[in-house]
Amino acid sequence: MTDTIVSSATREVVIGFDRPFVIIGERINPTGRKVLAAEMKVGDYSRVTADAVAQVQAGAHMLDVNAGIPLADEPAILAEAVRLVQQVTDVPLSIDSSIVAALASGLAVYQGKALVNSVTGEEDRLESVLPLVAKHGAAVVAISNDESGISEDPNVRFEVARKIVERAADHGIPRSDVIVDPLVMPIGAINSAGRQVMQIVRRLRDELKVNTTCGASNVSFGLPNRGGINSAFLTMAIGAGLTSAITNPLHTEVMQAVLGADVMMGNDPDCSRWIRQYREPAPQAANGGRRRERGRRRRA
Amino acid sequence: MTDTIVSSATREVVIGFDRPFVIIGERINPTGRKVLAAEMKVGDYSRVTADAVAQVQAGAHMLDVNAGIPLADEPAILAEAVRLVQQVTDVPLSIDSSIVAALASGLAVYQGKALVNSVTGEEDRLESVLPLVAKHGAAVVAISNDESGISEDPNVRFEVARKIVERAADHGIPRSDVIVDPLVMPIGAINSAGRQVMQIVRRLRDELKVNTTCGASNVSFGLPNRGGINSAFLTMAIGAGLTSAITNPLHTEVMQAVLGADVMMGNDPDCSRWIRQYREPAPQAANGGRRRERGRRRRA
Repeated sequence: MTDTIVSSATREVVIGFDRPFVIIGERINPTGRKVLAAEMKVGDYSRVTADAVAQVQAGAHMLDVNAGIPLADEPAILAEAVRLVQQVTDVPLSIDSSIVAALASGLAVYQGKALVNSVTGEEDRLESVLPLVAKHGAAVVAISNDESGISEDPNVRFEVARKIVERAADHGIPRSDVIVDPLVMPIGAINSAGRQVMQIVRRLRDELKVNTTCGASNVSFGLPNRGGINSAFLTMAIGAGLTSAITNPLHTEVMQAVLGADVMMGNDPDCSRWIRQYREPAPQAANGGRRRERGRRRRA
Repeated sequence: MTDTIVSSATREVVIGFDRPFVIIGERINPTGRKVLAAEMKVGDYSRVTADAVAQVQAGAHMLDVNAGIPLADEPAILAEAVRLVQQVTDVPLSIDSSIVAALASGLAVYQGKALVNSVTGEEDRLESVLPLVAKHGAAVVAISNDESGISEDPNVRFEVARKIVERAADHGIPRSDVIVDPLVMPIGAINSAGRQVMQIVRRLRDELKVNTTCGASNVSFGLPNRGGINSAFLTMAIGAGLTSAITNPLHTEVMQAVLGADVMMGNDPDCSRWIRQYREPAPQAANGGRRRERGRRRRA
């Protein structure tokens, strides 16, 4: 039973065992989005805020904010994106950069308790990112690779995760504030990638007792019908104990998989979220709605 | 590593750990299908054979055949249905009845090694069905309830399964020919039903080392968007170790979930089944195809 609590100025989100799965919206990321990158670089954040609102409306519980644009002032852009996204939504944010100065500037303007995305098991990352996380009392995503790269052996990846959790403790960061990303490989290239992730996620929950997250879309890289593969992956990984994912909430198939997995895990009491989302309107209610609609039009 | 082998006169199907999941088509069952029941009762099996062909085309690896019609001669009807289905398809059959005489007459005409559906842990069922299974060298579905009904405690259901496996052994039926149905409750009524099934399926695989099956559609009873719930259930149960299910292969969403789960489990080498099913035709190939099509038309 480990709960990771993150927050905005006004809202708290808890990532935890035996809780509904947490979706972290992935869209605010200029990697591979040329138009968004160009806009952010010249200070146009209209698409950033629109993406923020759309993802929350689609069911995202948190949003990842990334400003990784080549040859741009990433610390300044990330801080501005964080500031503006917090103006249009109240969900907690994941501040996402591979540049420590950008994480620092994002955290400096952030209101609430952020999730820092990410630290790896590499020595220089551990010693530059963890002090920043500790200083701000934030939570952090721990990616289970180190100087030797990403091991194909899930046991090695588990040991890297353990090292990060121990080092975080040295910096005063409790294990409940470390969310491990076990790293998901494209299953089209590595057929055992699914089993690997299930195995490591189970160990992270049972032995290391930490919450988990991953970039879920990576698993389907290169395959047709990626939504189908992503849905199968998320459902099975939630069954194994995965507690959050960075993914696209605008994909209705993926959102359905997550809601269905919550039902299966017993984390949607009385299936009330599922029923609210998918029930068909009763014929009488639909008639009533139409009558009211006509009434409004007449008054307009 | 337990393999259950069933067969028709010409085709073998293996249900097993680390193998593609086996879909047993559920459609040939007059329960709740008034038109089908009326037709079968008067000796019209056209819908039975059409349903058989359609399910196999949709991807069923086996077919369940049930003739449970009130006030009808079930042994005669079941035998005729089995005989006719074996004429139009070559997949192995699951001979499904709660009447021992009907199981006997179905087995008498069956060509190959059938799956008998089912025996429970009730004393009179054990001692009437198991000798029949042994006599025909068939495999059998073991439903984990007994005289005391269906326990809500998965550990009790596990013990009932163990009892059936042991009794089957007394009759000379190896555990590899017993496929346990852990019984799936409607999750709208029992919110822990999903977790229960995962837990018992894992124990059935790891401790009792038997294959498993279930009537997958039952889990979504009473809920909207049943396909979404059934898909989530099957994906997660396959992740826990379920090796077959009696379900409707005509539901494309459910079939996608099973194919996706096979990919995740590493049981679709190189994702070749997935790619074959979902790849979009390359533009050039499509043109080539059209050209050939026109050519054929000209010649015709």
